[in-house]
Order: sequence, then C-alpha cells, then structure tokens
Amino acid sequence: MFPSALLPFPQGKRRLAGVDIGGTTVTTVVVDERWQLLADETVATDLRDNAATMASIAAGIRQALAAAGTTGPELAALGVGIPGMVDPLLGISHLAVNLRWSDFPLAQRLTELFGVPAFLENDVRVAALGVHTFDNPNQLSDLVYVALGTGMAAGVILDGQIFRGRHGLAGEFGHFTVEPDGVICGCGNRGCLETIVSASGVIRLAREGLAAGAPSALRAATVLMARDVYEAAAGGDKLAQQVIERVGTELGRALRNVALAYDVDEIVLGGGITRAGDLFLAPLLAEWARQRRESALARFLLTPELVRIADPTRNMGAWGAAALAARRLNQIEQG
Amino acid sequence: MFPSALLPFPQGKRRLAGVDIGGTTVTTVVVDERWQLLADETVATDLRDNAATMASIAAGIRQALAAAGTTGPELAALGVGIPGMVDPLLGISHLAVNLRWSDFPLAQRLTELFGVPAFLENDVRVAALGVHTFDNPNQLSDLVYVALGTGMAAGVILDGQIFRGRHGLAGEFGHFTVEPDGVICGCGNRGCLETIVSASGVIRLAREGLAAGAPSALRAATVLMARDVYEAAAGGDKLAQQVIERVGTELGRALRNVALAYDVDEIVLGGGITRAGDLFLAPLLAEWARQRRESALARFLLTPELVRIADPTRNMGAWGAAALAARRLNQIEQG
Repeated sequence: MFPSALLPFPQGKRRLAGVDIGGTTVTTVVVDERWQLLADETVATDLRDNAATMASIAAGIRQALAAAGTTGPELAALGVGIPGMVDPLLGISHLAVNLRWSDFPLAQRLTELFGVPAFLENDVRVAALGVHTFDNPNQLSDLVYVALGTGMAAGVILDGQIFRGRHGLAGEFGHFTVEPDGVICGCGNRGCLETIVSASGVIRLAREGLAAGAPSALRAATVLMARDVYEAAAGGDKLAQQVIERVGTELGRALRNVALAYDVDEIVLGGGITRAGDLFLAPLLAEWARQRRESALARFLLTPELVRIADPTRNMGAWGAAALAARRLNQIEQG
Repeated sequence: MFPSALLPFPQGKRRLAGVDIGGTTVTTVVVDERWQLLADETVATDLRDNAATMASIAAGIRQALAAAGTTGPELAALGVGIPGMVDPLLGISHLAVNLRWSDFPLAQRLTELFGVPAFLENDVRVAALGVHTFDNPNQLSDLVYVALGTGMAAGVILDGQIFRGRHGLAGEFGHFTVEPDGVICGCGNRGCLETIVSASGVIRLAREGLAAGAPSALRAATVLMARDVYEAAAGGDKLAQQVIERVGTELGRALRNVALAYDVDEIVLGGGITRAGDLFLAPLLAEWARQRRESALARFLLTPELVRIADPTRNMGAWGAAALAARRLNQIEQG
C-alpha cells in the first residue's frame, strides 16, 4: 500500500496540493485520494516585489492544478512550506529573508485566490513531515531530517508530530559551535557547523585549499560548485577528498550530539550535497565506526542504520506540504 | 497555593512517598494530600550485595514512613528514582552500575514489602519532573534539567512529559564531544563534555594545573574536592579561577547546543558544584553575553533568563519521585 498507513487521506476529499516555496523556485505537487501524483510543476520565484512574488507563487499553483486537470472544486486544501519563521496558526510568514518579505499573510491570500484553506509551516519542518509520511517504510515515529543547502536546517518529528520549540528554533543544529575560533557565520557567531557542513562550507574549504596552493583539478573551475568538489573527489583529487572528509567527519561529530539529545529512531539527510550518496556518507560513517571501536555507548547509539539519505526522487518539501494539508484537514474533521 | 496547579494530588489518596536511590544514600520524602512535607529521611545505601541493598532501601522508606506517622494503610504509592537504565513499564532496574545490580525487579519487591504500587524511573528524569512540578513558578511546559555530579546527566521535559528517546538515552549531553583529542571519558570516547563539566572535571583540571606547577592554595589540600576549588576561586586563587572559568565557558557553549536542539523554556542546573551559585553561573553567562554581542540569533535564544540553578533546599530526586507516583495514579484514575 502507498504511501504508509501513517496518514490517511482526508475522508470525502479528492485533491490536495503541496507547495514548496523557495527563493529560487516554487514547486507544487497535486495528489489524489490514493496519494497518487497527478502533477509536479516548478516555476521561478519572482522576487522583484511582494506582489510579483505572490503572483509567481499563484501562477505555479495554477500551472500544477491545470496539469493535474484539477480546475473545479475538487481541490480540498493547500499545504505550503516556506523558508524562515512562520506562524502556523495564523498562516503568516513572519520573516522570510529569501523571499524579501516579513509578516506577510500568505495563507489568507492563497485562500482568497483559490477558495480553499491554506496551511503554512516552515519549509524544513514540512520536508521532515514529507520524509516521515512518504519515505518511512518502518513507520518510525521519531526522526530528524537535516537539509544541507547553502546552510543547514533541520526538522524534528517527535511522537509523529512536528517539534518546534518555544520560539520555533528547535533543530537549528547548523548553529552548533564546532570551531570557537572559526570563520564568522551568517548568524554573527564564529565557527558554526554550517560554515563547514553545507554547500557553502564545501566551497569555502575547497577555495581555502586552492588559496594555500594545493594542487587540484578544481583550480580549472570558473565558478566552483559543491558538486564539482564531490565529482573531483570521486575522480581521486586529493584536495577535494580532504574537503569532503572534513565535512563528513564534522557532520558525524555533530550528529552524535543530535543522537544524544533526542535519541531518535532515524536521522535522514537531504539537500544538494547528499546527492553524492555513499561518497557523502562514507566519512561520516567512518567517524562513527571509530567512535564505536572506543565506546560501548557509541556502539549502542551510533549504528550505521541510524543515518541515511532521503529518497532523492521525491521533492520532500512539496510532498510534505501536501501531508501538512491532509493532517490539518484530518484534525479539523476529528474536531 | 502550593506547589503548582500542574499536578493535582491523586483524588481520595492521603500519602505518597518519593524515594531517591543513589550509590551512597537513599532519601525518602513522605507528603500529604496538600503536598506538605511530613518526613525527609536519608540512610546509607548498603552495597555489600543485592539483598543488603534492597534491605537498606526498605529500611530508609520505613524510617521515613515512621517519621511521618504513616504506619497504616494511608500510603497510596511509592515513586522511585534510580540511577541507570530503567524499564518504567515493567518496573525493572536494568543496569545500575552504582548499585551493582542489573535486571532487578525493584518495583515488584517494593510492592511485596509495602503493599502499594511502586513506580520506577531514571533518577535524573525524576529530578527533572521534580523541578517541573515543584520549582516551576511560571508553569513552563518544556524544560531541561542538568544534574552535575561525578558526571553529567540530564532530564528533558517536553510538553509537560518526560522525554526518553528510543533507547532512553535522550539528554545524554554529558557525552557531547567537546575536545576530540581530549582525555578518555568513562564511555570510552575522548573529550566528552562531562570530562570537563562535572565535579570530576573540576578536580581533574585543578590537579592538572597543580601538576604543571601553578602556584595555588589548592596544593595544601590532602583530598581535593570540587567544593575546595570553588572556595579557593572565591578567595582569589588564580588557578582555581581559571578552572571554574573553563568549566563555565564549556558549559555555556554546550548549553547553546542544547538550546538550539530543543528551544526549551528553561534550562535548570542542579548538583553539587551548582551550590557555588553566582560564582558557578558567572562564566557561563559571560560566554553567552559574548555570543549575544556577536549574533542576533544568540540575542534571541541565549538570554540570561534561559538558565538558572534549581532550588537547592529541595531534594528534587525524592520530590520528583513523589510527583511520578502522583502522575501514575492520576493516569490510572483517568483510565
């Protein structure tokens, strides 16, 4: 059966849309009552002003609904994942630096445009819900989803529910201090984890190696991307290998702390640099293997099964947004 | 009203006992239906063998019941906090290194002896429940209680409930890696937080300073205790001041990670070395102040109000054990 028994499709409803809004693109999926995918459409986010941004989001949703043949009243609700701080109850996008707006009543606007309820949540929390719902064959109730992009963000699911914390900052592991005298992070402090473990971190470390004169094929790149570093490492480039080993080792050390904090069933990794697959995971697993050789606690806690890469074929943000919509409708149904 | 509206005393019941079992002492409190303290008795834990340990626990409880004048059927239940891994449902003490037993059916034995239900939980989780119930004037629902003794342990309360994690290891912050090349911890790995932030850590750092030839009044101590280091620091001893500054700074850095993981309402510190009060907290708060000067995220998250020392006049372990008993009876009452 697909996907899992964890989330029944809202009774009597026919279609849901899940929208993943980012600073570059808006992706919308439309699903039917058997959770089958009817459409998966991506458009560019227009950042010229708030009205243009809103228009591009609406156009992306309309395009997906049209592709799904969902032009009538069969759409039951919209779920939306959005970067930054969100008020999930009021449907307000408080501060979304990437979208250049603050205190924007997005849920209300979407409801005016599409005539259905719209439910908002922070994008990485929505993606964690996507993993929990659609990429969770063992129906685990507690998991952490870590998204590695320009920075690092995480969504925490405890007892099957999104865990936000007091200010909505729970899971901000990207700002674990790992090098008290390291480089300055976007947050203002020095040596945060995401200055190393992120696409930006990979690029920075590679550039530092090049500047120090390390011989490397990366020197030929005009615009260096994190993907180039993983490809060069796969091809045997020494500098690239050192960079990805450093990144994986630091991630392994940080995820030890995550495991000690939550003792979750699973830690799932996603985002651009995890596409490197085993090459990405190898230094993390090597660090854990080293810790297991030394420690009974580590043998108990840091098993290779604790960590994996999310299903890369599914846009977890958009699917998770559809799951969010289903959950909210089910909650309303249950009173 | 006392204590807080967070935990009603079980309806129709008259007395509860809370027992805090440690490797050195057993402390039992007996409380009445208005949560007034009737007795607070401590006896030595007899570690010669399991039967002797059990006998000393039972003797401690009997002594407290006698002191409370509770010799008849008015005792409704026993709550028990115990070091190590516990099965709270079966009432089994799986592995309690300090008590030198494993897989001991403690709840069943206590029920046989006292004719009432006995409820078991890990001691630091019970103490966290004690803080949540009896030292929580703002009725906060999410808090972390960190106990600093020989090592470091923590109990996590989320949404008013004890949070254990998959294997009961949630909150094992003492094993955060803070010095990958540091000294070997009891767990087998190097540089765990508790090798620095604990009574043992304080003593070790002071000894290392003495061995390196630092001039210090601590050189006169025949048996060096963590308390001596805090007293010497208060008296202006340079080495002692360096030690407690190092400990507080590392704790401040680690609690940043705790705050980022859970974003709780409050982090409460307890255990021997926290008795030093402001002297203990000062370097932690100085580290946070430094981080706040640099970072908007830190200004938002690491406020001085986030951390405090637990009420030192109350044995949180024993009181929390009484709270545990009340919760379980209330749950049973509610079906």
